Amino acid sequence: MNPIEVIEHPAQVLNRIGTWVHTTPVIQQASLNREVGCAVYLKAEHLQKVGAFKARGAVNALLQLPEETRSRGVATHSSGNHGQALAWAASMLGIPAWVVMPTNAPEIKRKAVLGYGAMVVPCEPNLAAREQTLNAVTAETGSSFIPPYDHPHIIAGQGTAAWELLQEHPEITDLIAPVGGGGLLSGTLMAALRHSSSVRVWGAEPAGADDAWHSLATHQRVPQTNPNTICDGLRTSLGELPFELLHGRVSGIVRVEDADTMAAMRWLFERTKAVVEPSGAIALAAVMANQAQWQGQKVGVILSGGNVDLAHLPF
Amino acid sequence: MNPIEVIEHPAQVLNRIGTWVHTTPVIQQASLNREVGCAVYLKAEHLQKVGAFKARGAVNALLQLPEETRSRGVATHSSGNHGQALAWAASMLGIPAWVVMPTNAPEIKRKAVLGYGAMVVPCEPNLAAREQTLNAVTAETGSSFIPPYDHPHIIAGQGTAAWELLQEHPEITDLIAPVGGGGLLSGTLMAALRHSSSVRVWGAEPAGADDAWHSLATHQRVPQTNPNTICDGLRTSLGELPFELLHGRVSGIVRVEDADTMAAMRWLFERTKAVVEPSGAIALAAVMANQAQWQGQKVGVILSGGNVDLAHLPF
Repeated sequence: MNPIEVIEHPAQVLNRIGTWVHTTPVIQQASLNREVGCAVYLKAEHLQKVGAFKARGAVNALLQLPEETRSRGVATHSSGNHGQALAWAASMLGIPAWVVMPTNAPEIKRKAVLGYGAMVVPCEPNLAAREQTLNAVTAETGSSFIPPYDHPHIIAGQGTAAWELLQEHPEITDLIAPVGGGGLLSGTLMAALRHSSSVRVWGAEPAGADDAWHSLATHQRVPQTNPNTICDGLRTSLGELPFELLHGRVSGIVRVEDADTMAAMRWLFERTKAVVEPSGAIALAAVMANQAQWQGQKVGVILSGGNVDLAHLPF
Repeated sequence: MNPIEVIEHPAQVLNRIGTWVHTTPVIQQASLNREVGCAVYLKAEHLQKVGAFKARGAVNALLQLPEETRSRGVATHSSGNHGQALAWAASMLGIPAWVVMPTNAPEIKRKAVLGYGAMVVPCEPNLAAREQTLNAVTAETGSSFIPPYDHPHIIAGQGTAAWELLQEHPEITDLIAPVGGGGLLSGTLMAALRHSSSVRVWGAEPAGADDAWHSLATHQRVPQTNPNTICDGLRTSLGELPFELLHGRVSGIVRVEDADTMAAMRWLFERTKAVVEPSGAIALAAVMANQAQWQGQKVGVILSGGNVDLAHLPF
């Protein structure tokens, strides 16, 4: 597979979605750089629309649906940010949206989806029930399933965060993004490849949900079973297309303990006054907990989102 | 008293301190404006050096000390942001600093002061012990007492936040700042007077520590006794010089219940991903809890700081 034929150039994607999403700021802090021994560039996607990078992929996918398909609406299953992002994007474009959510999803995320005017369809909290309910919804409504990561338009959209970061700071040598389903990481990799062949791209993955690490090490997709991590956005299995894009091209997957993710999250709250969710802090944790690896480098870090349940902060 | 002879023009102050402090961003959010029925401009002083506007006044005061006085160092008593700000400013200018802190001050604030290289002198948690300990420190070291708010250089420094906001958004009709000792509010008032006589300036004060409201209503300073509020930065009594400046010139003091302050703080965390402390959220609470008062206006709100103890969040 030639990935450049599959994933659109991020500059073209930004031409399409640029009026819908924020160009998020980049946070730098001299005291952090001294502490970790490298220059860190924090791409603030927690300040993106809906509080996460997922807005980029969702609006990119919806804008490319044919007019007739679009009018019948869109649907997905999600307990997290993709559901919010799809609801938001659909609301922006004036089309109906259905989000299948497990009954144990955080109230704040359910309310956010409803707040964007989407229909919430409850289901039992397991993958089989999610898929079954989603199939029933699309069959009944004629709406189109927009997957959370395993789709070239989604991946291309997510990659625009890294593209913005590299355009603003072309001196960056390394990029780190969290990896769950792999939409953000593979989009980040594709953006880096379009920018320069010398930028290294790394995934940050919870040690308790390290299927991407296993999959890339064994050269075949190993599904995630029994994930055990505070990073609720990264419990899913690596998608097929992300695996194809990442395999043999990504520089490595850094496995991160939850304790290190929580420490990075706390550091972000205290020192940058930024509300970042665990899945959003893990890439910074990969830097802070492995300082020898990045000495003297210029490291771009994607803070992927900030939708944290304040009633259940880990500190 | 002609206040313009007492408080320096904020543009001149910014010439002095501009290289030391941040020009903080202004946050606007369409959904907030729709919700409250006015245009709100949030001045993000939680992103200021040391996480609070106090950095402005502290560095302004230290830069105006004569060389010989400066070299003997500076001292203050503070359980909060002024101590951090003084420690930071002294460290920037390479001069020694002593901060008298009550033994029950939050560990995070003590550590921050130590982190800036200042000496922490512990004292019993009452005003008499604070003042006694401070007098002993200045007598022994020859250092100069830099008060937290009752000083024209401190007030002039704090006013630069509002000046920046008005320069960036001259359409603003109303400004709201928290009031404790009154340094920020009187500085804000002076900046507004220099900008335009038509901008109204309001204080936001905890209902459980409303001595500024009483003082201005009775035309004489009424000290605060037994403050009862979550806003730890606003429990102090209104200072003498702030009283002189505010009396007859400020448009009013809005008394705010702690429950409304906590709701505003939570809204800031969830909707803008900003870590703001209770004293920093009270001015937004004054808007959200009194919507009829601001209909159709353009309201500048000072988010004064973000140094919150994460172990004791009120949600």
